[in-house]
Amino acid sequence: MRERMNVTVWNEFYEERTYPSVSSVYPDGLHVVLGQALAEHLSPEAHVRVALQEEPEHGLTQAVLDGTDVLLWWGHLKHDEVSDEVVERVRRRVLDGMGLLILHSAIESKVARALLGTSCKIASWRHDDSELLWTILPGHDIVRGVPNPVVIPKGEMYGEPMDIPEPDELVFISSYEGGEVLRSGCAWQRGKGRIFFLASGHEESPIYFQPEIRRVLANAVQWATPPAQPQPKVTRKGEWPRNWWAEA
Amino acid sequence: MRERMNVTVWNEFYEERTYPSVSSVYPDGLHVVLGQALAEHLSPEAHVRVALQEEPEHGLTQAVLDGTDVLLWWGHLKHDEVSDEVVERVRRRVLDGMGLLILHSAIESKVARALLGTSCKIASWRHDDSELLWTILPGHDIVRGVPNPVVIPKGEMYGEPMDIPEPDELVFISSYEGGEVLRSGCAWQRGKGRIFFLASGHEESPIYFQPEIRRVLANAVQWATPPAQPQPKVTRKGEWPRNWWAEA
Amino acid sequence: MRERMNVTVWNEFYEERTYPSVSSVYPDGLHVVLGQALAEHLSPEAHVRVALQEEPEHGLTQAVLDGTDVLLWWGHLKHDEVSDEVVERVRRRVLDGMGLLILHSAIESKVARALLGTSCKIASWRHDDSELLWTILPGHDIVRGVPNPVVIPKGEMYGEPMDIPEPDELVFISSYEGGEVLRSGCAWQRGKGRIFFLASGHEESPIYFQPEIRRVLANAVQWATPPAQPQPKVTRKGEWPRNWWAEA
Amino acid sequence: MRERMNVTVWNEFYEERTYPSVSSVYPDGLHVVLGQALAEHLSPEAHVRVALQEEPEHGLTQAVLDGTDVLLWWGHLKHDEVSDEVVERVRRRVLDGMGLLILHSAIESKVARALLGTSCKIASWRHDDSELLWTILPGHDIVRGVPNPVVIPKGEMYGEPMDIPEPDELVFISSYEGGEVLRSGCAWQRGKGRIFFLASGHEESPIYFQPEIRRVLANAVQWATPPAQPQPKVTRKGEWPRNWWAEA
Repeated sequence: MRERMNVTVWNEFYEERTYPSVSSVYPDGLHVVLGQALAEHLSPEAHVRVALQEEPEHGLTQAVLDGTDVLLWWGHLKHDEVSDEVVERVRRRVLDGMGLLILHSAIESKVARALLGTSCKIASWRHDDSELLWTILPGHDIVRGVPNPVVIPKGEMYGEPMDIPEPDELVFISSYEGGEVLRSGCAWQRGKGRIFFLASGHEESPIYFQPEIRRVLANAVQWATPPAQPQPKVTRKGEWPRNWWAEA
Repeated sequence: MRERMNVTVWNEFYEERTYPSVSSVYPDGLHVVLGQALAEHLSPEAHVRVALQEEPEHGLTQAVLDGTDVLLWWGHLKHDEVSDEVVERVRRRVLDGMGLLILHSAIESKVARALLGTSCKIASWRHDDSELLWTILPGHDIVRGVPNPVVIPKGEMYGEPMDIPEPDELVFISSYEGGEVLRSGCAWQRGKGRIFFLASGHEESPIYFQPEIRRVLANAVQWATPPAQPQPKVTRKGEWPRNWWAEA
Repeated sequence: MRERMNVTVWNEFYEERTYPSVSSVYPDGLHVVLGQALAEHLSPEAHVRVALQEEPEHGLTQAVLDGTDVLLWWGHLKHDEVSDEVVERVRRRVLDGMGLLILHSAIESKVARALLGTSCKIASWRHDDSELLWTILPGHDIVRGVPNPVVIPKGEMYGEPMDIPEPDELVFISSYEGGEVLRSGCAWQRGKGRIFFLASGHEESPIYFQPEIRRVLANAVQWATPPAQPQPKVTRKGEWPRNWWAEA
Repeated sequence: MRERMNVTVWNEFYEERTYPSVSSVYPDGLHVVLGQALAEHLSPEAHVRVALQEEPEHGLTQAVLDGTDVLLWWGHLKHDEVSDEVVERVRRRVLDGMGLLILHSAIESKVARALLGTSCKIASWRHDDSELLWTILPGHDIVRGVPNPVVIPKGEMYGEPMDIPEPDELVFISSYEGGEVLRSGCAWQRGKGRIFFLASGHEESPIYFQPEIRRVLANAVQWATPPAQPQPKVTRKGEWPRNWWAEA
């Protein structure tokens, strides 16, 4: 684990204050529960802060992003109200090395679509299905200590085909009570940044309270944290280092 | 479609003559039904022949392989009795361009393991589950004209994790009645050859009689057929062509 | 080959009318030579038309795109003047199945960045280097009939690291006189569309007159052409077809 | 870094005792220099031991492999004399999580071919070329602290096409004095094990004395070290954990 990880949890924070079906589960906001999940596993190394869509610049000034190692993104109904400028800022920061966790419906957010390039649409969805989250890559950092399968008693079905680029690593596949399937845990490298999509996380169910899912989130944050020491910049011809080793 | 495709259907041909539960479904052998499925879709371009495990050299002499564009492989209980020499011969021919369809339990055959490098083991299996075969890549050649999902009323559950190399293209995912999932349609390139694994095909169910599955098989054979015109060999330094175009 | 392929060659068409170093090589525009290259190999099946940046809607109305199977894109100095609306229109059409060839400096175009998600920046560049274009995947459709290597006497060096998503298939790697390397032929699937980037194509050198490169372009157009028959749409639960085959 | 990493350096150890051109560079054997390189960077966490082809069971008993986290493999002229039994033992151990570094000519070893499935042949080779080793993935663990490019004054050219499965991650590409290129740093996941191929390492040149290459080797060992805590085994239906979290 890195000595210190700066994590920012971004939340749309709309449904929790609007719909009883959501506020009854996440009265203080999804971001609070997500933050607690990370603190539970990653304290004291992780420093977790929150950014909300309603804040100026959506809480994501350049300074905040520059000070963020991993960004979690949860959004659903207000994707279109996120400013293009902030989306571009996030995109560049990911390419420069910041990790990004795309949570549940955020797969269709502007940020996800900007980085992945596709529509990220799913073919079908349905509330109140139970879900089995299956580990496909048992050696992957993100599944460490996670039972296989994880049983989610009630969530939201998201059905394939989902219009995403082929993941670099397909970590989880879910099946739902109705028989549909989803590539529900997908990892991509974009620029120097690592991106992980976790589908499980419907706002009307206490999924982010489930210990197994909290473990997945914490593992994913660790996995997505950029290394402390970057690679030296590429040198141009004529600047290539003399072969000092050969002359020693 | 190529003007002519030479297809060889290889079959272990043991259970069809041993177990009533199998012979009642495939009295003449799985190879016969597989061959009919291809003929149905690919005649007159495809010329289909059969090779059986019991034949000398398992029916796969170098001459047969040299004359084969795409090989279908069905085996289950007798994997270990396939000679290493023939396995190596098949492996080399695939690397040299021959297409290979790995059918159902053949994912654990010596041929599959030699070409993929992993154990190809599945974590669980169970008879008599219904299966939904979901298309993940709607633009892929192999899914052309195939409904999504394909409903298989009764088959055999194969459960993840399955120990295979990450597919180059993940074409199908299946869910089963019991809730398990499988990467049930996987495509790999190995050398100049194309390999496709289709999990659906339990020998106690008439799955290869299903029109949708027959369509998948025919599509896969077309997809795996090598091009008629190969690339010129690599030239060594000093043999590189003069820039004849620049001198014209 | 498809019975008919509708190809649109899009060109920025600025340098050919501005700089003698370019107009002396491509006096009628790069698009004319690109179109001739395709006609040479793909007539009469391919119908090639041209669209220019200076035209209304950059020549890419929805109707034009709907009637295009494969789009070639050449741009360099005027990327920023391409309207976001047209970029989004192209992006959607690719996701819906249209093929796209990204040529040379167009790797940094808005269209390429929108579909790939990364900055697409290269670490270094330099004029007047000779280039060797090496085939990495000898079985790939795009290299059929192409010598290995292709010798390009004078072009433009593009040096790694290049900030692109890992290609689904790495078809070519180039080395340059100065020692740099580039993943110069990259294939991606995005949605239902196929994308191919070919780096070779500097506007001050007659690279698109080279027979080997013309062959690569024609092969890539064929490879990127969507199939005539699409897959049926996904059906929702409750609409799944009865197992009509079982009842026949 | 893991608290303790057990590393085994395996060497054919033939040329160093046979050819003056090799013994003059590596008088004590390549394994000694490789071990020193790792000790230099990874002490005291790494415990490095040596295994030689000439030893009983090639020094790789089941007990040795079970106690190895990462295995380095250097071989060249005696590939065929490695016993199939040991190869199979190594293959299984990698699938079970052991990391593997395939060094230089070992890309054509039995172990590499068994795990990768292809012939691993290169199209051309030549002694005494200088090499530039270019980083393609600047965010990758293996390139941390490594200059880009690394200049290798004299080595052995290995030319594409090389018959390997598409790497999961292409970390380095080399260009050589003669103009050839190679995917010289390739990463694969196989089972639970991580595999890395580093081409640079010709036995007649002091490449493993170069600080940049030693850094690459140390980084690769860390990257390939399996996590201390494995994932729980998959549970079968009926054994799935009660949702204890929901009942708390």
